[in-house]
Amino acid sequence: MRNIKLTIEYDGTRYLGWQRLGDSDKTIQGKIENILTQMTRSKVEIVGSGRTDAGTHAKGQIANFKTDSKMALSEMIEFLNRYLPQDIVVKKLEEVPERFHARYNAKGKKYSYYIWNNMIPSAFERNYSFHYAEELDLELMNEACSKLTGTHDFIGFSSLKKTKKSTTRTINELSIQKDGNLIHFTFVGDGFLHKMVRILMGTLLEIGAGTLQLAAIDEVFESKIRSEAGITVPAQGLFLDEVYY
Amino acid sequence: MRNIKLTIEYDGTRYLGWQRLGDSDKTIQGKIENILTQMTRSKVEIVGSGRTDAGTHAKGQIANFKTDSKMALSEMIEFLNRYLPQDIVVKKLEEVPERFHARYNAKGKKYSYYIWNNMIPSAFERNYSFHYAEELDLELMNEACSKLTGTHDFIGFSSLKKTKKSTTRTINELSIQKDGNLIHFTFVGDGFLHKMVRILMGTLLEIGAGTLQLAAIDEVFESKIRSEAGITVPAQGLFLDEVYY
Repeated sequence: MRNIKLTIEYDGTRYLGWQRLGDSDKTIQGKIENILTQMTRSKVEIVGSGRTDAGTHAKGQIANFKTDSKMALSEMIEFLNRYLPQDIVVKKLEEVPERFHARYNAKGKKYSYYIWNNMIPSAFERNYSFHYAEELDLELMNEACSKLTGTHDFIGFSSLKKTKKSTTRTINELSIQKDGNLIHFTFVGDGFLHKMVRILMGTLLEIGAGTLQLAAIDEVFESKIRSEAGITVPAQGLFLDEVYY
Repeated sequence: MRNIKLTIEYDGTRYLGWQRLGDSDKTIQGKIENILTQMTRSKVEIVGSGRTDAGTHAKGQIANFKTDSKMALSEMIEFLNRYLPQDIVVKKLEEVPERFHARYNAKGKKYSYYIWNNMIPSAFERNYSFHYAEELDLELMNEACSKLTGTHDFIGFSSLKKTKKSTTRTINELSIQKDGNLIHFTFVGDGFLHKMVRILMGTLLEIGAGTLQLAAIDEVFESKIRSEAGITVPAQGLFLDEVYY
């Protein structure tokens, strides 16, 4: 059996998210599996590095699948990009050892979140950022980034209920770059709980807007109470940039 | 009567182009006129700086309209951006002298064209560039840009039939910038004939690909025969960036 690793880019606007839902044709995983099944003429299931929510994008989602097919990788990638919808692109295919598993072996991930920060919205960034019109205190948000960096129990910054599994994660980098009206947030860590990036982002946003105190971060680490953190920002500003192995 | 100048940004993907077609709701002009008519409660017609083709985008289209309305500009822009679809944005409104006419007074225009130059397509640039997979000789294309710059009769590089009006235009700048896989072409001139940017672009592309000789440019200036120039590239890579007055 060959084990093949895919690097995938997608514009999530039209989709219900990564994970296949029954026979629905509105998920990224479902779309790719359907084409792979046509290509290899036997049912293919792919393993993604993790789910992405409806509307969330990816520039470097990773998945793998096993196949008996003898087809060359160069032919496969051509077939895939010819028959996939234009908003899903397979950027790379690699032959990997049979034990490689896109989810279990992931050692970390990099996400981006974009805020369009101007009174006037953007016609081009509308599906790729969250439009926030009010002024933001970037200095305060940078302080908040420092507080969030490091190893913490992030359960209060996730949509998870109490669980026996560890909810401790390490954020290695959380940085902010302003480029005109677009503010780009980079999150690098060893793993992110469900909705964690969007809730961290909502917390940073509320701190920058002055509706939440900087001290709220330590309080949520302490209390582990989701409702004391910021809002969950919309999925359309979020990109999965890279998965580390 | 007040005369109001609009600066408009639009993602042209979903539209049949700028110019209103009867009662069709699928044009930019039609969409904006409908909202302005609702806003002022009397029929409004807007004059654009010029048409853009179906699928073409704008970052700085200019238009103007006359109205008796007493509404403040700040209220108007808020109303417009609230009720326009998200892929059309009014960036600026200005009070201008009654004689200002967005088309007649335009002294020049700036366009951009984007080529996505890689084997692998882009999920995010698919509607905002032309995907061209083969290698391009940028040096040769730069030479072609020099040849096209200046004052020439561009009728052979347009979709126009013989006409009594002058088809002589001046291109002040035609430059190429490469940013990763994206190649950005900038066209600045005192005016562009119908389809001229897309045919110049197709000519540059064929020269870069080696399927058309550099000498073809002088030959088309000479012969004025459209079929001797390059293809008309797709509209989705084209942006109207700025109109000069």
